Amino acid sequence: MKEKKNSGNEGSGVKEEIRQYRDRLLVQQQQIREKGLPVVILVEGWAAAGKGSLINELIYEIDPRLYNVVSPAILPNREERYPFLYPYASAIPENGKFMFYDSGWMEAAVRKYLRRDITKAQYKDRIRSANEFERQLRDGGYIIIKLFLDISCEEQQSRIAELRSNRETEWRVTDEDIWQHREYDLFRKTYEEFMEKTDKYVPWHRLDGEKKKTALRDALELLVKSLDKALEEGRYCGKPFKEEFPLLKMPKLKDVDLSPSMDEEEYRSELKTLQSRLGELHNIIYRKKIPVILCYEGWDAAGKGGNIRRIARPLDPRGFDVMPIASPEPHELARQYLWRFWTRLPRTGHICIFDRTWYGRVMVERLEGFCSEDDWKRAYNEINEFERQLTDWGAVVIKFWIQIDPDTQLERFNDRQNTPEKQWKLTEEDWRNREKWPLYEEAVDEMIEKTSTENAPWYIIESNDKKYARIKALKIVTETLEKACSEQIK
Amino acid sequence: MKEKKNSGNEGSGVKEEIRQYRDRLLVQQQQIREKGLPVVILVEGWAAAGKGSLINELIYEIDPRLYNVVSPAILPNREERYPFLYPYASAIPENGKFMFYDSGWMEAAVRKYLRRDITKAQYKDRIRSANEFERQLRDGGYIIIKLFLDISCEEQQSRIAELRSNRETEWRVTDEDIWQHREYDLFRKTYEEFMEKTDKYVPWHRLDGEKKKTALRDALELLVKSLDKALEEGRYCGKPFKEEFPLLKMPKLKDVDLSPSMDEEEYRSELKTLQSRLGELHNIIYRKKIPVILCYEGWDAAGKGGNIRRIARPLDPRGFDVMPIASPEPHELARQYLWRFWTRLPRTGHICIFDRTWYGRVMVERLEGFCSEDDWKRAYNEINEFERQLTDWGAVVIKFWIQIDPDTQLERFNDRQNTPEKQWKLTEEDWRNREKWPLYEEAVDEMIEKTSTENAPWYIIESNDKKYARIKALKIVTETLEKACSEQIK
Repeated sequence: MKEKKNSGNEGSGVKEEIRQYRDRLLVQQQQIREKGLPVVILVEGWAAAGKGSLINELIYEIDPRLYNVVSPAILPNREERYPFLYPYASAIPENGKFMFYDSGWMEAAVRKYLRRDITKAQYKDRIRSANEFERQLRDGGYIIIKLFLDISCEEQQSRIAELRSNRETEWRVTDEDIWQHREYDLFRKTYEEFMEKTDKYVPWHRLDGEKKKTALRDALELLVKSLDKALEEGRYCGKPFKEEFPLLKMPKLKDVDLSPSMDEEEYRSELKTLQSRLGELHNIIYRKKIPVILCYEGWDAAGKGGNIRRIARPLDPRGFDVMPIASPEPHELARQYLWRFWTRLPRTGHICIFDRTWYGRVMVERLEGFCSEDDWKRAYNEINEFERQLTDWGAVVIKFWIQIDPDTQLERFNDRQNTPEKQWKLTEEDWRNREKWPLYEEAVDEMIEKTSTENAPWYIIESNDKKYARIKALKIVTETLEKACSEQIK
Repeated sequence: MKEKKNSGNEGSGVKEEIRQYRDRLLVQQQQIREKGLPVVILVEGWAAAGKGSLINELIYEIDPRLYNVVSPAILPNREERYPFLYPYASAIPENGKFMFYDSGWMEAAVRKYLRRDITKAQYKDRIRSANEFERQLRDGGYIIIKLFLDISCEEQQSRIAELRSNRETEWRVTDEDIWQHREYDLFRKTYEEFMEKTDKYVPWHRLDGEKKKTALRDALELLVKSLDKALEEGRYCGKPFKEEFPLLKMPKLKDVDLSPSMDEEEYRSELKTLQSRLGELHNIIYRKKIPVILCYEGWDAAGKGGNIRRIARPLDPRGFDVMPIASPEPHELARQYLWRFWTRLPRTGHICIFDRTWYGRVMVERLEGFCSEDDWKRAYNEINEFERQLTDWGAVVIKFWIQIDPDTQLERFNDRQNTPEKQWKLTEEDWRNREKWPLYEEAVDEMIEKTSTENAPWYIIESNDKKYARIKALKIVTETLEKACSEQIK
C-alpha cells in the first residue's frame, strides 16, 4: 500500500507560478551570460530527499551550454588526496555560467565528522573554511544560492524502503544512506548547527522536500529573485576585510643586508650535503603523504630559475612538479583568481614548486590595474585564508622572496642582453617593470608584512650572490621538512 | 659486500661527452621554445632499471618552466575509468615544451595483459592504439623519443635486494616489481614483442641500464640529435594516410527527404515514453559502467540545443555532462587538436553530450584555413582511430548530424532576429557561414562518407520539423543503449 504523499497536487496555482518563474529564468539566463555573472547553486539535504530531481527541474529551462552539475561527493577517493575544499573550489563556474553542486561542502564536512574521520577541531576548521570559501566567492562577484532539502525521518524511511523494493533502484541506496537514516537525529542536529554557523555570508534556504512542487516553486523563486537582484545591482565587489592572523615580524626590503656571499668550495660541499638530505626527505614526505608547496617570488633576474633547479635536482621526478605561472589565460580570467592555483595543487606526498604564485594579485595586478583596489586589498586576507586551508590539510607551505638590489639587476639584464643564448630571458616588460622598482618595492613590503603568517611564512633570500641564495633556500627547505617529518602527522 | 658495478666509471671521455651534450641541450631548449616544437620522451624499462634517475639526469639542464614529468602508471585507479590511452593523451606537452613519461603505454599494456586483466584480442587492440597514438602525434609535429632501459635478470635481482635491505628504500619495491622479477623471461619476451610491433612510426632505442653513465650519454645523444634534426627541418606535418575502416553507406545531404513531421499529440506521447525509458536506461548504464558519448553537429539554427535538452531531461544530472565546444583556447591550440576532447571524456557509466565536436577539424578548420590541407585530410583517418579507441574501451558512440534546408534556416534566423530573447543566438558569423552553405555541404558530405563507421555511426536527423527530429534522436539513443545494455560487457 503506497501512500499518496509526493504527488505534487499542491494546486494548479503552484504549477502556474513554476511556469512563470521558468519563463523568467529563460530570459535571465541570457542576461547572466551577457553580463558575465557566475552563479553557484548548492543543493544539500537528506539522502532520498530528491536533490537530483530538484536540480533536474531547475535546469530544465537553462541552455545546456550555460550550466553544469557536479557531484563532488561521488568522486571516489579523489578528495582524500587534496584539501577539504578542493573538489568545490576547482569546480566553480566561469563568468556567465551556472554550476549546480549536488551536495557539497556541508555534506562532506558533516559526514567526515560524524564518522570520526576528523576531530572536533578539524571539523571547526572546516566550518571556518566553508565560510571563507563562500565569502571569497561572494566578494569576487559570484551569485550563490544555498538550499537544504529537508524531509522527516519517517518520510526518509518510506522513500528508502520504496527504492530498495525495486530491483532497478535498490543500488541507489548506499550504506552511507542507511547509516544516515539510522542516525537521523544526530545528523539533523549536526546539519542544523552547521547551517547556523555558515549563515553568516551566504544565507541558507530550507525547502520542504516532502512537497515536491512547492519545493521547486520556492527554489525557482529564490533563484529568479537572486538573479534579478544581481542583474539590477551589477557585479558585487567585496570590501577589504581583516581577520587576525598570527603574523611574523618581517624587515623592509631596504633593510635587508645583501652582502652575504659564499665561496665556490663551501658552496659545492654544502650543496652536496643538503641535496643528498633533501633527496632522503623526499622519500619520507612521499611515504608520510605530506604535501609540500614551495612558492617563489622575486625580482626579474633575481635567480629564481637557478634556485628552483637546485631544489629540484635531488627530487624524484615522479613526486614533484614545477608550475610556472604566467599571465592568466582567458578561461582562468573568467573565474575567481585563486581558481588557477586550486587546480594546480599537488597531491598528498607530492611537492609543488610554484615559479611565481597567487601573490601576483597584490603585485602586478595591483600595479597594472588588472583588478580593482578593493580586490587587491581584500586579497591579503583571502590569501592568508587560502594558505591556512592548505596548512590545515597538512601541507608544508614555504614562501621565498628572492631579493637583489637594482644594480645587480642591471648587471644581469646587461649580461642577458649580451649573451645570445640568454637573450630570450629578457623582455621589454622586464625593462618596464624595472622602472617601477619603487612602486613594486612598496607593494612587496606590504605583501610580506601582511602575509607572513606562522603557518606559511615568507623567507627573504639574499640573492646578490646566487650561491649563497641557493644554499639558504635549500637549508630552509630541508630544515622545515625535517621538522614536518618528525612531527606526528594529523 | 657490495660489488662495484653502477659506479659509472666508464671513463672520463663519457663524462666529457655528457657535458657537451648538456651544453648543447641548454641552447636547444630555447630554440625548441621559440619554434614552439613539442617534445615527448617516453622512458620505459624494467623495475629498478633506473628510469627515475635517468629522467632526473636528462632534465638537469632544462629550465623547469619548459618541462614536466608524468608517471601515469602511479595514478591509482584513475585510468581504470578512462580509455587505455587517456593518461598519456591527456598529458601531452604544449608547443615548445618537453614532457617526460616515466613509463607509459607499453608498461600499462604489457602489465594488464600478463595479469590477464585483458584478453589477447584486447592486447592487440592496445598495440594498434599505441601505434596510432604515436603516428598521430608525430604527424601533428611532435618530436618523440622512445627509450627502453634494459637490465639483466641478475642485475635486477641484486638491485631489488639492495633496495629491500634499506629501511629508507624498501617501500620502493612493490609487489608488482617482485612479480615482474619472478616472471622476468615472460616479461622480456612480451616487451620485445611489443617493441617490435611498435617500431613502425617511432623507433625504440634500447639503453644499457647497467652502465649508468653510458646510458645517460646515449640518451642525451639521441635527444640532442633528434632536436637538431627537428630544428633544422622545421615542424613535421604528416601526409594523409588511409586505413581501412568498415564504413556504412550514407546518403548525400541533398538526397535527404526533409518532409517528415510529427503532430503535437504524437510528439507528447512519444516523448514521454522515450524519456521515461531513457531515464531507466541511464540507471543501467551507470551500474554496468558503460561510457556513452553523444555527438551533435549540424547547421546553425538546426535545433541542436533543443534536441540536446530533450535527451538531457530524463538523465540523472550526476551522471551526465553537456560539453559545449567553442573555438579552442590558446592552451588548447598549443596541443594536438584531439587533446581538448581527450580531456573531456566521460568516466565509465557516464554520458557526455558534445555540442559540436572534433569534427570541427574537417568543417570549420578546413574551410576557414585554420589548419593545412594535409592536416584536415589526415583527420578523417585520425578521427576514425580515435573513435575506435573509444569503442574498444566499451563506449557507445553516436553521432548526429542535425539537418535542415537553407530556407528553414533563413526562417529561423529571421525569427531569432525579431525575437529579443533569441537575438543572442544569432551572430554575424552565422550569416557569414550561411553564405558558405555549398562549401559546408560538400565538407559535411565528405565527412559523413568517410567517418560513418560501424562502431561509431552517423545519423542524419531531419530537423525541418523539430519535434520529429527530437523523437528520432531519442529513439536512436534509447535503441542503441538498449542494445548495449543487453550485450555482455567486455
